[in-house]
Formats: sequence, C-alpha cells, structure tokens
Amino acid sequence: MQALKDKIINEGQAIGSEIIKVDGFLNHRIDVAFMEELGREFKIRFHDASINKVLTVEASGIIVAAMTAKEFGNVPVLFAKKTAPNTMVDGFYGAEVKSFTKGIVSTICVAKKYLDADDRVLIIDDFLAHGEAALGLASLVEQAGATVVGIGAVIEKEFQGGSQKLRDKGYEVESLAVVTKIENGKISFK
Amino acid sequence: MQALKDKIINEGQAIGSEIIKVDGFLNHRIDVAFMEELGREFKIRFHDASINKVLTVEASGIIVAAMTAKEFGNVPVLFAKKTAPNTMVDGFYGAEVKSFTKGIVSTICVAKKYLDADDRVLIIDDFLAHGEAALGLASLVEQAGATVVGIGAVIEKEFQGGSQKLRDKGYEVESLAVVTKIENGKISFK
Repeated sequence: MQALKDKIINEGQAIGSEIIKVDGFLNHRIDVAFMEELGREFKIRFHDASINKVLTVEASGIIVAAMTAKEFGNVPVLFAKKTAPNTMVDGFYGAEVKSFTKGIVSTICVAKKYLDADDRVLIIDDFLAHGEAALGLASLVEQAGATVVGIGAVIEKEFQGGSQKLRDKGYEVESLAVVTKIENGKISFK
Repeated sequence: MQALKDKIINEGQAIGSEIIKVDGFLNHRIDVAFMEELGREFKIRFHDASINKVLTVEASGIIVAAMTAKEFGNVPVLFAKKTAPNTMVDGFYGAEVKSFTKGIVSTICVAKKYLDADDRVLIIDDFLAHGEAALGLASLVEQAGATVVGIGAVIEKEFQGGSQKLRDKGYEVESLAVVTKIENGKISFK
C-alpha cells in the first residue's frame, strides 16, 4: 500500500535495526481518516473472505480493527486484554505472548462467551514482527473451536520472520507494508 | 442518550453496587456502528466547541475517541499510555491515576511533542467514576499549557462523585448516560 509506505517514510522513525516508530499516526497519536483507509485496504486484501468477527489485541490494534470491521458490514470487534480484568468473571481463553520490544511475556485473554465455535475470525494487528502476538490471537480463536480466516498486519517487519512462521502454519497473511530492512535510519520496503 | 441507556439495560450487567459490565459492546467486544452513534452524540453535546485534538487513555476509550474525532472533522486522537514504552524517547508528560476498580495507581503518559500550548483538547473516556482518569488526562493537557475544552464520558457513575469534582474545577462535563444507583442488579439512570 503505497500511501502507507509514504507515511512511514515521511512520518515514521527508524530506531536501531529493529524498531520503527510510527506513533505520529498509528499507535499514540492517531490519524483517524488514514485508519479508515487502512480498513478499506484490508477489505480489498481479504475481499473474498467470509468473516463474522475481527479480533485484535489492545491497545494499538483496536482502531484499525474497528475500521476494518466497518468495511465488513460492522461485524463485532473483539480485543484481547493484556491482563484479566476483575470484571471478567465468566471464564476466558488465555495465551502467552512474548514481546521482544518490551522484553516480557504476558498473557492475553478474551472472555469465552465472545468466541463461538462457528465464528470465522479475521485477526488484525498494527505490527507483525516475530509473529508472537498473532500466534497468541490465533490460539485464542482455536481454543474456542473457531476458524482463523486470515491475519492482517499494518506493518510487517519481514526480517523478523513472523509472517513466514504464520504461513508455515497454514494461515493466510496480508501485510499492508512489508519492511525488509532497517539500516542507518533508512527503512526499506518490499 | 436513550439508545445507550437501553443498551446498558439490555446488554450490561450490574456487579455489586459499583460496577457496570458493558464488555459486550464497549470495552471488550465492540459494536462499531454504535460507537459511531456515540461519536455523533458527543459532537452534538460539544457542538459549539472549537477543538483540534481528542485525548483519551488506552484501551477502551480509543474507539469512542476516534469516532468522536471523525465528527469533529478528523482531528487527531491522542491516547495516553499506561506505561512509558521504550520507543517513547523524546520525553513525555506523566500523571498518576488511581484505579478504584483495579486497586492500583498507575502513571499515564503522552509524548510531549504531541501536545502543544495552543491545543484545544476534548477529553473522551468510556467511564467517569471517581474522576481520577479524567483529572490525570486534564493534567497532561495543562502540563503542555494547552486548554481542556471539555470532558466527555460514555457512562458516568454519578454516585462516585467524579463529575462533581471535575465541574468544581471548572471543567465542562458531558456524560451520555448518567447512572445514579446500582442496586440488587438494577441500574438506575438520571
């Protein structure tokens, strides 16, 4: 998606060889109209997919997931929580996710009652790096006996291997911008 | 907002005398079309306000804030983070917020570069209870020398005193549903 690549180049910032900071439009300050564009692009990428739910994880994924859900006829969005809140009393599915950026392992969870065995779920997240978050989300879906229809990421850091890992497991993966290298402050795309 | 009260009655759940669980449409599974309705309602409530930014705190507030920002001509949304991420290298404003529900004090923060002294900010959050989150968000705005134009909450638990506290400090507060009492599983509205 050229508009996204342009935005990453113009407004993003490369930190070291692994981190892209896009908190000017995606994960701190949000450009809402652009999030709608991303939603439309995901609809194009997963055009033929029959889905009835979008799943993401708090917090940065929520707005892209919502704009994607709008394009799929306002299907519900479910966002996994990073801690089980004390209001979630009816049981939940959990999956461990290692964050390489933050250097911690956390458990993401969703309430069981919001995932059904006949659900067809599109997983959406802001970044796809090592694939840990996506695998955790897919695990939540599968614990419910539901189907992962596809996995969509706004920015994929291909060199961290997540998309290959997900495709090897049979998931359809679509990334709106695929970064092949970050070097000397320069971000290269596929 | 009658549609919201109806939705709380029909889909919400009262827990004890202080907690309303609305994770079926607002803060776990999201009804996106309804979030757009909430955004339209905030535009009506703050109709005359001149704002150029919407501020909220992760995670549940983000989608309502985004839908509100859309109504105000796609002004940027800024969401405060509950932990300072290691990609936020350029300095940030912080404010301590006590969560009565979770029983913890956390520091919310925003990157300094995304709040300017001439900003006119609308603060949006899902719940207004004791007012701690809103006060923390207002503090972030004021640390930047910017102006809090108003504070909007989807659900106010009036009996917990937050809205009065905020009005006493001179803030304009608009809540889309005002809960006066939670008793024996019944939620009463103003």
